[in-house]
Amino acid sequence: MSTLTVKAYGAESTTADLKEMNIERRETTPTDIEIDILYCGVCHSDLHTARNDWGGTMYPAVPGHEIVGRITKIGNEVTKFKVGDLAAVGCMVDSCGHCDSCKQDLEQYCLNGFTGTYNGKDKHLGGHTFGGYSEKVVVDESFVLRVPENLALAAVAPLLCAGITTWSPLRHWNVGPNSKVAVVGLGGLGHMAIKLAKGLGAEVTLFSRTPGKTEDAKQLGADHVVISTDEEHMNSVKGKFDVIIDTVPYVHDVNPYVATLNISGTLVLVGYLGGLEPILNTVPMIMGRRSVAASLIGGIAETQEMLNFCGEHNIVSEIEIIKMQEINEAYERMLKSDVRYRFVIDMKSL
Amino acid sequence: MSTLTVKAYGAESTTADLKEMNIERRETTPTDIEIDILYCGVCHSDLHTARNDWGGTMYPAVPGHEIVGRITKIGNEVTKFKVGDLAAVGCMVDSCGHCDSCKQDLEQYCLNGFTGTYNGKDKHLGGHTFGGYSEKVVVDESFVLRVPENLALAAVAPLLCAGITTWSPLRHWNVGPNSKVAVVGLGGLGHMAIKLAKGLGAEVTLFSRTPGKTEDAKQLGADHVVISTDEEHMNSVKGKFDVIIDTVPYVHDVNPYVATLNISGTLVLVGYLGGLEPILNTVPMIMGRRSVAASLIGGIAETQEMLNFCGEHNIVSEIEIIKMQEINEAYERMLKSDVRYRFVIDMKSL
Repeated sequence: MSTLTVKAYGAESTTADLKEMNIERRETTPTDIEIDILYCGVCHSDLHTARNDWGGTMYPAVPGHEIVGRITKIGNEVTKFKVGDLAAVGCMVDSCGHCDSCKQDLEQYCLNGFTGTYNGKDKHLGGHTFGGYSEKVVVDESFVLRVPENLALAAVAPLLCAGITTWSPLRHWNVGPNSKVAVVGLGGLGHMAIKLAKGLGAEVTLFSRTPGKTEDAKQLGADHVVISTDEEHMNSVKGKFDVIIDTVPYVHDVNPYVATLNISGTLVLVGYLGGLEPILNTVPMIMGRRSVAASLIGGIAETQEMLNFCGEHNIVSEIEIIKMQEINEAYERMLKSDVRYRFVIDMKSL
Repeated sequence: MSTLTVKAYGAESTTADLKEMNIERRETTPTDIEIDILYCGVCHSDLHTARNDWGGTMYPAVPGHEIVGRITKIGNEVTKFKVGDLAAVGCMVDSCGHCDSCKQDLEQYCLNGFTGTYNGKDKHLGGHTFGGYSEKVVVDESFVLRVPENLALAAVAPLLCAGITTWSPLRHWNVGPNSKVAVVGLGGLGHMAIKLAKGLGAEVTLFSRTPGKTEDAKQLGADHVVISTDEEHMNSVKGKFDVIIDTVPYVHDVNPYVATLNISGTLVLVGYLGGLEPILNTVPMIMGRRSVAASLIGGIAETQEMLNFCGEHNIVSEIEIIKMQEINEAYERMLKSDVRYRFVIDMKSL
């Protein structure tokens, strides 16, 4: 299969800084789209993959799955896009297409495993996939999204992961104008959860450990901020929320939040992979038909729905634009939560 | 308030056997119904309350919340029943009637606390409520259920707790002809979960720790039995079930069952109050939008719906009829799971 060589930024090993390198992209097949990447958001998963925090990283690792750009080439069977269109790619570039999940537009739960935008198994070239920290990407049109033209393009990039990860549970658990939604954690995911829940018409509360984020949260659209370390404040919202989007990426006690769920309410974990410690107490669950659930990104059709919704409601992410060469410093700042609320790489800098 | 004295069976203290005693029932108010109790099912909660296993038991304790009988008297404002009708009473005899839960027919989640059929706060006479181990009960008509005439009356009694406790989550999580349902544990609740899920048209699997229950489960309607201690057998049903009704009343590892949930599936705990140990792992949850939930009995309208459904589908509980005087022995047998599948007291014996 013929390829083109493009510049990228990646890690050669667990301990190496990211640096410039060349990677190969396949030439467009009949159903492929080639995108000139203009901006790429920086997700915590990028950092964890580059440093092999979860195991399984294949090197060189080129992260990036919040990709926006302009189409430079299309295969001759492509029907939904044309050269010059804006386009986006999120966390997935392929899935089996025929399992029960794929048939229901739930590619993120593909029973045969979706192909990650990076560190996935490359079905075309062999080896593994390379993400958006690069000049160009080539993706089958069924995994390419349309981008509303009215939005600030750089600030659209984080919608492709942080946006859809919070949108999908808001939609699945039927958030609308009569809903009371709470968001745990104000980072890349949390700030999008506030904006999207507010956009859907819900009354939105942020749970925060410190009062310092109150003003920011309200500017993002939160109606209320509850300080989760203040027991009295927590008691005042017992039984209140229909849906809680918990974006905290590390182990934490969910029991105090479960107690704030309304009857039949659901707490959805979108950030934490691991064991629930301290142990989850079923008493408040059984006494109010409360659920603890978890959710992973979202399907392609749902991602398009979210982008269209953001276009109509003028919703984008809050970002800090960096140069590609600043990525290692950006990772260090992310580890200190020193970003409001998402870094986005300006790919011109590469 | 004038009262009538009726014979009952109850415990005078934590350690006392149940014995015959007299209790007072109120005379029917305008909206009340007086029921001559013919049969009363024996629930594990009866035993736990009699022995104060959960704390908070008020003595004398007269258990029993699976009550069926015939109406002997009605208040002059009663509209839905007449003297001579069959009638039933379940776990609740009152609720506030005006909170968000009550307004949605979710009296079991009354925000002001429903009145338990026994060991609840008696709003009429003061003191605490007495359950169905007695000759008669007087209950407001809004908490009295109609009983289909075509069913074996004694075997209807357990529907009032074991039946509704499993029916409510089956309905809330939309079980129907295309559903794959699993039931964990084959006791009073588990055997009703199998019958009701089957009645709703689902494909039903029982998880059992021992092969000894296979034949019984299939006679009750289970399509499959999976031995939960057999790793290979468990692996063969990974990702299969839309809804799991977990009836196990003691601490147990739910992680192996969560792994058998389908994408977007829900495991509902109906038997266990306490902490989830070993700790719940969120990885299989996030990778398939899986939920762990819990559910408590059901609302009055839903209980009537379940009784009507049982009438139409000829569904009753599997029971062993005992005399009132055999209750202490029955409790001992229940502790050894030596009952298929519910004891029902023939109240003539009192």
